[in-house]
Amino acid sequence: MAAVVLHDYWRSSASYRVRIALALKGIDHDRVTVDLVGGGQRSPDHLARNPQGLVPVLEIDGLVLTQSLAILEYLDETRPEPPLLPADPAARTHVRAIALAVACDIHPVSNLGVLARVEALGGPEARAAWNRDNIARGLAAIDTMLDHPGFTGRFCHGDTPTLADCTLVPQLYNATRWQVPFDHLHRITAVANS
Amino acid sequence: MAAVVLHDYWRSSASYRVRIALALKGIDHDRVTVDLVGGGQRSPDHLARNPQGLVPVLEIDGLVLTQSLAILEYLDETRPEPPLLPADPAARTHVRAIALAVACDIHPVSNLGVLARVEALGGPEARAAWNRDNIARGLAAIDTMLDHPGFTGRFCHGDTPTLADCTLVPQLYNATRWQVPFDHLHRITAVANS
Repeated sequence: MAAVVLHDYWRSSASYRVRIALALKGIDHDRVTVDLVGGGQRSPDHLARNPQGLVPVLEIDGLVLTQSLAILEYLDETRPEPPLLPADPAARTHVRAIALAVACDIHPVSNLGVLARVEALGGPEARAAWNRDNIARGLAAIDTMLDHPGFTGRFCHGDTPTLADCTLVPQLYNATRWQVPFDHLHRITAVANS
Repeated sequence: MAAVVLHDYWRSSASYRVRIALALKGIDHDRVTVDLVGGGQRSPDHLARNPQGLVPVLEIDGLVLTQSLAILEYLDETRPEPPLLPADPAARTHVRAIALAVACDIHPVSNLGVLARVEALGGPEARAAWNRDNIARGLAAIDTMLDHPGFTGRFCHGDTPTLADCTLVPQLYNATRWQVPFDHLHRITAVANS
């Protein structure tokens, strides 16, 4: 089997989701840095791998995969142990909804390109306020979503990490980086501490 | 079985994804309007259904489901015919990546709340330019992603509609609404015309 190669950037939280999943599943891989600050995502080589010019990209099984959540689902379908989704459809949709609440509603509104455009419109203070407000509102909603029979206080759902944890943990790293407090969000804090 | 109820808004493209899936699968349902322009999404009743204050929300099987793509996956797992995902994991991840490219990277950056904040920073012209640029760049990348062995020219992948079509079609409605041309994007135009 060809080597597994993850094209990522250390501060990309979408890449971080895939790094967690690869670690949980014990999948050996090489990492190649795409320097987002230096514009590496717009190089012809990278655009050939991903027309969206984003990271992560995962080369695996002769495929070139994009979109972190689609990659996580692929890893779970082809390497089922340990599972990243529960077995029951009701629990699966709950886990996916938490992951999507981060991936669709917090992360894209705070990505580097969007923040640069906000700064061009309103300056660095507008950029910082935009980012903090977006993360704070998003995390508050997710804390309420976690109030669910499957919540264990250790992970987002059940006794093992799922797609939701793979997505939430990088977002908490971002919250800390941008000084958005979440210690009043008790369920999220419990997950963060475990 | 209790009635299926979709809480949505006619112009919400995330709701439109679920409406397409319910129609494809022939699932009878009632629709309840959440008036996004009048602030209905921030009512206590709606926030109890969805702490994110977003539509769609689907009541089904005694559950209250949020996040359109999680809802589509649930419908496909519990009502498998006709399938919204192909059988092969490589094809499944491709279909999901297209859906996520719309749902994570185009749609949230052009949602009502974000556009209102852009307008507050830069005025109505900045809002319009932001929105057009975001949709145009997103669709161009997706047109390249569609260049894949599974592309049929009728649907995004294969001979039947998938999660990708459920997500792309509402985005094309938005593109038309905001006068973002996509007739130079041949694969997307083929899907739109069929």
